Amino acid sequence: MHTLPRLINDMYNEKYPSELLQNAVDAICSLPGVGRKSAMRLALHLLKQPVENVRHFTDSIDKLRNDVKYCKECGMISDSDVCSICSDKSRDHDTVCVVESVRDVMSIEETGQYHGVYHVLGGIISPINGIGPSDLTISRLKERMGEMSCQGRGPDLEVILALSGDVEGETTSFYIYRQLAGFGVKISSLARGLGFGDDLEYVDNLTLGKSIINRQIFKP
Amino acid sequence: MHTLPRLINDMYNEKYPSELLQNAVDAICSLPGVGRKSAMRLALHLLKQPVENVRHFTDSIDKLRNDVKYCKECGMISDSDVCSICSDKSRDHDTVCVVESVRDVMSIEETGQYHGVYHVLGGIISPINGIGPSDLTISRLKERMGEMSCQGRGPDLEVILALSGDVEGETTSFYIYRQLAGFGVKISSLARGLGFGDDLEYVDNLTLGKSIINRQIFKP
Repeated sequence: MHTLPRLINDMYNEKYPSELLQNAVDAICSLPGVGRKSAMRLALHLLKQPVENVRHFTDSIDKLRNDVKYCKECGMISDSDVCSICSDKSRDHDTVCVVESVRDVMSIEETGQYHGVYHVLGGIISPINGIGPSDLTISRLKERMGEMSCQGRGPDLEVILALSGDVEGETTSFYIYRQLAGFGVKISSLARGLGFGDDLEYVDNLTLGKSIINRQIFKP
Repeated sequence: MHTLPRLINDMYNEKYPSELLQNAVDAICSLPGVGRKSAMRLALHLLKQPVENVRHFTDSIDKLRNDVKYCKECGMISDSDVCSICSDKSRDHDTVCVVESVRDVMSIEETGQYHGVYHVLGGIISPINGIGPSDLTISRLKERMGEMSCQGRGPDLEVILALSGDVEGETTSFYIYRQLAGFGVKISSLARGLGFGDDLEYVDNLTLGKSIINRQIFKP
């Protein structure tokens, strides 16, 4: 049977000198943002490398896919059952920052401004992509809140909804807000406003409006 | 011991939640033209794929590196001992096109204008990168010429030097020209001149000069 990349080859009349090379190029150009020309360049690059380097390359990808664990508390990528953030006793376990993905946790960690824990949703509600609330870890978030409330920590708890500012992010935030309403926890979201370095002239109306409403005392 | 990518991480103060993820990102960003941000994106993409897809991806790269053969005649990548071009009896085996790399063979094949055979040098003479004539397959080319001359095909033979138009390409062409001088074969090189779609105003002097000297009878 012809696969899509194979059909594209035929279309461009590309002739590969070797089935092995063609398979590797097909595989590499299945990665997002990698076209056939780049895939060929990468395949020929890998061909020139020592065998052990290529083995190390493919091994580290196989190991990542096969051995990676997800923290049973927050859903973050981890080498152990509980991730380094959730098992860090010096962090504030009463503040839970809800994010879309692993990448977002890393971005927030890089700021060095947050000392609570996280909850990784594993995606965002997006009817157009067929992703509903049940595909995300929202029920696990409710479980966590339930456990924390049972421990009488309810009034101290804060959930920060740190999702994207687009329609899907807003929808997901609103859905989670409704789901958590019964737990009596404080629910906040990221501050909206002018970004550092933003030119006022080019900022959209919604953002500018919000940043006027939520203006802050000037602290030089 | 710290490797270079690890040091760069430390520099950027990037904190990876998992050693496995970090190893995979290090491996992926060792590819040419792939930065740390892209490598992270690709690693997280692979994490989301089914296990068998990732296995297929790494398998096809491992197989390429471990099982690929090079044609014993021309040095082209091949699945067998002699490549499909060298074993094709309908091709003109008296014309040998000398190219730098596998990619060049594929480019020339795609034009559909050449029906001879090839000789892949596996690189180009480049003192600045420490590549000398002995690192290339020039001695094998001389062997081939010797064998062909013994068969009395000397006067019919043509060697086309299809190397890049830069200093290194010219140097390599000149070196091979001198090496083959004793075999009494015809030696040609690619035509130089205006490319299709080139604007006369922006063509460099050397190319324009050559294209005036080597002007051709106009055939509409």
